[in-house]
Amino acid sequence: MAVDSPRVAGFRFSGIHCGIKADEKLDLGLIATEEPVVAAAVFTKNRVKAAPVLVGEERIERGRVQAVLVNSGNANACTGEDGLRAVRDTCGAVAEELDVDMGYVFPASTGVIGVPLPVDRIESAVVRLVAELSEDHAQRFAESIMTTDRWVKVSQVNFEVEGHQPATVLGIAKGAGMIHPNMATTLCFLMTDAPMSSSFLRTTLRLAVDNTFNAITVDGDTSTNDTVLALSSGKVNVEPLRGSDRDAKNFGAAMNQVLHELSHSIVKDGEGAKHVVTLEVYGAPSEAAARQVARHVSNSLLVKTAVHGCSPNWGRLVMAAGTAGVMFDPAKLEIRFDDVVVVRKGVAVGGSSEELAREVMGQAEYHVGIGIGSGPAKSSCIFCDIGDTYVDINSSYVS
Amino acid sequence: MAVDSPRVAGFRFSGIHCGIKADEKLDLGLIATEEPVVAAAVFTKNRVKAAPVLVGEERIERGRVQAVLVNSGNANACTGEDGLRAVRDTCGAVAEELDVDMGYVFPASTGVIGVPLPVDRIESAVVRLVAELSEDHAQRFAESIMTTDRWVKVSQVNFEVEGHQPATVLGIAKGAGMIHPNMATTLCFLMTDAPMSSSFLRTTLRLAVDNTFNAITVDGDTSTNDTVLALSSGKVNVEPLRGSDRDAKNFGAAMNQVLHELSHSIVKDGEGAKHVVTLEVYGAPSEAAARQVARHVSNSLLVKTAVHGCSPNWGRLVMAAGTAGVMFDPAKLEIRFDDVVVVRKGVAVGGSSEELAREVMGQAEYHVGIGIGSGPAKSSCIFCDIGDTYVDINSSYVS
Repeated sequence: MAVDSPRVAGFRFSGIHCGIKADEKLDLGLIATEEPVVAAAVFTKNRVKAAPVLVGEERIERGRVQAVLVNSGNANACTGEDGLRAVRDTCGAVAEELDVDMGYVFPASTGVIGVPLPVDRIESAVVRLVAELSEDHAQRFAESIMTTDRWVKVSQVNFEVEGHQPATVLGIAKGAGMIHPNMATTLCFLMTDAPMSSSFLRTTLRLAVDNTFNAITVDGDTSTNDTVLALSSGKVNVEPLRGSDRDAKNFGAAMNQVLHELSHSIVKDGEGAKHVVTLEVYGAPSEAAARQVARHVSNSLLVKTAVHGCSPNWGRLVMAAGTAGVMFDPAKLEIRFDDVVVVRKGVAVGGSSEELAREVMGQAEYHVGIGIGSGPAKSSCIFCDIGDTYVDINSSYVS
Repeated sequence: MAVDSPRVAGFRFSGIHCGIKADEKLDLGLIATEEPVVAAAVFTKNRVKAAPVLVGEERIERGRVQAVLVNSGNANACTGEDGLRAVRDTCGAVAEELDVDMGYVFPASTGVIGVPLPVDRIESAVVRLVAELSEDHAQRFAESIMTTDRWVKVSQVNFEVEGHQPATVLGIAKGAGMIHPNMATTLCFLMTDAPMSSSFLRTTLRLAVDNTFNAITVDGDTSTNDTVLALSSGKVNVEPLRGSDRDAKNFGAAMNQVLHELSHSIVKDGEGAKHVVTLEVYGAPSEAAARQVARHVSNSLLVKTAVHGCSPNWGRLVMAAGTAGVMFDPAKLEIRFDDVVVVRKGVAVGGSSEELAREVMGQAEYHVGIGIGSGPAKSSCIFCDIGDTYVDINSSYVS
């Protein structure tokens, strides 16, 4: 996902190599604002939280952030007291160099678990990191937070406030194949120049994450480091957005779109993925029931491997749907690949339907529908296939 | 798992090729007794149940069975009314040939979902199937129920009743890599010559399945066809076993051992599996909590691929344990590979521990321990690794 010269008023970025990763790849990033700006965040639900998450949770309570320090190549997780000290030391070095209150420096890390963070290398690089800050370096920042990502994930959407004033949401993420049961870290930073309160930003962020990132992962199935941070510089000179006015809706839609594009890109970047499937479960008694079936099916390894082999063995969809813990009448089950119905009223349609389904499955992106009754509710998930490449990467990668 | 001349008094077996599978492999099996014998069964918890399961549930209500008709190569699932008729027709043909009440013929199927059962081929083979019945054909029956299994699964344990009388439990199973999220069908048939009531048999069976088969799969994550059937011919001339006497304990232990051996063999036969891991979660506040963590970790694809690569990235164990939905203090986490402790009090032990763990992981079978606190409870799961072979098999196999 490429955005030509991504930028948003009030934010400067930097991305450099400081030596955490063995090669010359960028591994240290910084976002900075002129003064503390409105901030809100969503964190991992894992019981085991990395040191930067523990510190970040503390710092977001003030609702203001002035700098974001991110490293890749080391998660600073399962590092105990030393890990917490490492976060404070490195954030302290950045605070000093920027001459800001250390409580406004927000940390994030991604990479190997259980290895001490190389504090010296980061501290030695801070002068250079700050010197590189520029409104034009969003792309470099995006590169500096990558781990197994094959491409940078940047999305920008412009919208209007007060009828004519242009405003922007810029999103930068990392994560590849983060769908459960793959728990690679997701980091996401959202920046807007539209003004708002931190409580309004928090509400909008949570809603948007629920509709996007949470539809590609599973509640509670998150890594030790997952963090989504939203910042508002308020550089657009209008009244702060509020609850239900049109500007708030425009902003919500823009944030949704940015998060949708980023989450789609993350699924597509699934390790070795060749197919991106949008699964819709419909005819459910409630949205919660539909979501439960959709997530259960999306997480089935047998379904993922069938998608990999372009093999229309819908029996696996049936089995996975049947074990999702949701009551439904098997005699009403319907299964379709794009427009090709292969199961109707619980029975195989037969004829050429499987051959047609196989053709659909040859595409890089397609839809699968599972109808579980005649209820009014539906829910979608995005997932990718699992193939040999995934196994190769994950048999050796130390995470 | 080989047993020399498996047999148990009161049961005859048969296994032939009738043409469901394309090659000459055995695909139709029969167990028969002289008269209706005591029976109990445990079935799949999947919402979608195959036709033979629906009929089997009905027939087991009488608590008596005189014949068991099993086919492989076709699951007779998602086949609607036609599927139910196919079960009744084929069981009817066997009942007629054996001259028994059709209500005593218990059906089971495993194989492809959604394809009509070839009733004609089965019916044409029934005379031959019955003619082949012999007390010495347990091995042939075991072969006839295989699908992706690489070896037959037969286990026999002898025990004593009333102090000196020899009795036997014979178990025959099929299933390979049936661990969630792989939902290949498990079929298991247990036969004993010790006498007992059907309620006693049912209680003992449920307890034994909970301790064995249910520890290699996940509650509710079962295929459309899973069936475990236990039969007692009562040929040993002693008083029927009851609740709590020593004979009942001997029988329970024998059944546990048979089911444990069969479930271990099923895990070992995991498609492409090279390592069998016994995972123990200890220090939990309750057995339920320990079981929840053990099953969640066992189901993690990242853990399975790490096991495949002999890669001691315990970070994945930490992440998986942290998302199991059980509260614990990360600062008390302990992780060990056999006797090698790699994480103590939530922090990496370091030193040579990872290298030693890598050596442990090179073995075909080893133990992993995860301590989640200082509670009194523990629970174990058995699982296998997932590698390229698994992906290859499941990308193309139509199930």
